Amino acid sequence: MDIDTSRFSFAVLTMSDKGSRGERVDTSGPLLQKILAEQGYRQANYAIISDRVDHIREKLIAWVDKEKVDLIITTGGTGVAPTDVTPEAMAGVLEKEIPGMAEAMRAESLKKTPNAVLSRGKAGIRGKSLIINLPGSEKAARENIAVLLPALAHALDKIQGGVSDCGT
Amino acid sequence: MDIDTSRFSFAVLTMSDKGSRGERVDTSGPLLQKILAEQGYRQANYAIISDRVDHIREKLIAWVDKEKVDLIITTGGTGVAPTDVTPEAMAGVLEKEIPGMAEAMRAESLKKTPNAVLSRGKAGIRGKSLIINLPGSEKAARENIAVLLPALAHALDKIQGGVSDCGT
Amino acid sequence: MDIDTSRFSFAVLTMSDKGSRGERVDTSGPLLQKILAEQGYRQANYAIISDRVDHIREKLIAWVDKEKVDLIITTGGTGVAPTDVTPEAMAGVLEKEIPGMAEAMRAESLKKTPNAVLSRGKAGIRGKSLIINLPGSEKAARENIAVLLPALAHALDKIQGGVSDCGT
Repeated sequence: MDIDTSRFSFAVLTMSDKGSRGERVDTSGPLLQKILAEQGYRQANYAIISDRVDHIREKLIAWVDKEKVDLIITTGGTGVAPTDVTPEAMAGVLEKEIPGMAEAMRAESLKKTPNAVLSRGKAGIRGKSLIINLPGSEKAARENIAVLLPALAHALDKIQGGVSDCGT
Repeated sequence: MDIDTSRFSFAVLTMSDKGSRGERVDTSGPLLQKILAEQGYRQANYAIISDRVDHIREKLIAWVDKEKVDLIITTGGTGVAPTDVTPEAMAGVLEKEIPGMAEAMRAESLKKTPNAVLSRGKAGIRGKSLIINLPGSEKAARENIAVLLPALAHALDKIQGGVSDCGT
Repeated sequence: MDIDTSRFSFAVLTMSDKGSRGERVDTSGPLLQKILAEQGYRQANYAIISDRVDHIREKLIAWVDKEKVDLIITTGGTGVAPTDVTPEAMAGVLEKEIPGMAEAMRAESLKKTPNAVLSRGKAGIRGKSLIINLPGSEKAARENIAVLLPALAHALDKIQGGVSDCGT
């Protein structure tokens, strides 16, 4: 079935201490916006924030609860460094986890590098919104979102109560 | 090693709002009963209930704690729709999670459809019983249980304190 | 990039009721020590303890918080038997989970045996230390650690705040 992707708005949130201070140019955020726009999704927002659990939660909750953004893609903060806290911030944000999305991205990345096991991003649902954590590097973000693109529109349709057939 | 599957009882629980109201015929539940019976497991119970966390928990806990069913297979409610709450119901039921069962089912399904990432079923142990969440569609339920069948008897034997060799 | 593995200390913890009573010789523990020493890591400690959640937690927390061991490998207690409680002991020890490590080990083992789905080991971070649960059998422990060895030094470097490139 074909679902009209323009039904769904998206926002991209880049986690980067350096980026939020203007000391580093964010390339993954713009890349993800380009990819999603090319798929027909409507851009609603974009922000760069520092790697702090409370900041991340506040922003995600505002985008879901107030701005009603349908799809939120985060990039950065998914690794094992002390500053990487994106997965921890998801507790208290996600109401339902979708572990298969994270597993599929890691399994695909693992074909290219053994370091893929260190990617700790989560995916899940809050309200009627889908939130997906991607790694911060441009290359990894591009490869990871590619794994999920074929399932995104169907996921969003179902999350919002649609009755399209799963094909599973 | 060969473990006698007739040592173990099983029950199938179908989650379906429509099914529980008699508005939809459950085909996955009967299919799973047939598959498990063919493997030699003894049928103990079968029920169709609505997609409500409290109903699901109550039924699973009764089947484990009172009826001592060894193996409980659920079907339905594992997706991302607002009514899909089977994985959430498992909290408060499972005492130990077995994430590898869910991962293996999703990885296998992913070979067939990108939507497999949306299957959120869990598996785990309560008391001396094994509980496994399968998707609701007949096709997905059949494909998913096939992944686990070769490990089921050994799992049940170990869960109940058996000393068979893992072969791992 | 090449990271000097001799920067990092390691310890091996074997979970075995029989082993802790001297009724069973631990072969997996010594094997893992040999493998890690051959990779250049410096041995800090080794112990065999019984399969009790409080004992496991106490030992792991002491090794991380007091002895500052960089890498802790546990072996045993990851299965589905009533005595297998290693994964449950990790709650209250790990501050960040690294689910991809456990997923990758299980996916690799699954190529050899369907019983790999029953391995419930976790991996994660406490303070600046990496803790990884491996199965108890010598064969499974060897096969599982082999999956992670190529990512270990990079993981430890990042966990401790290093700025080496992920290559992902």
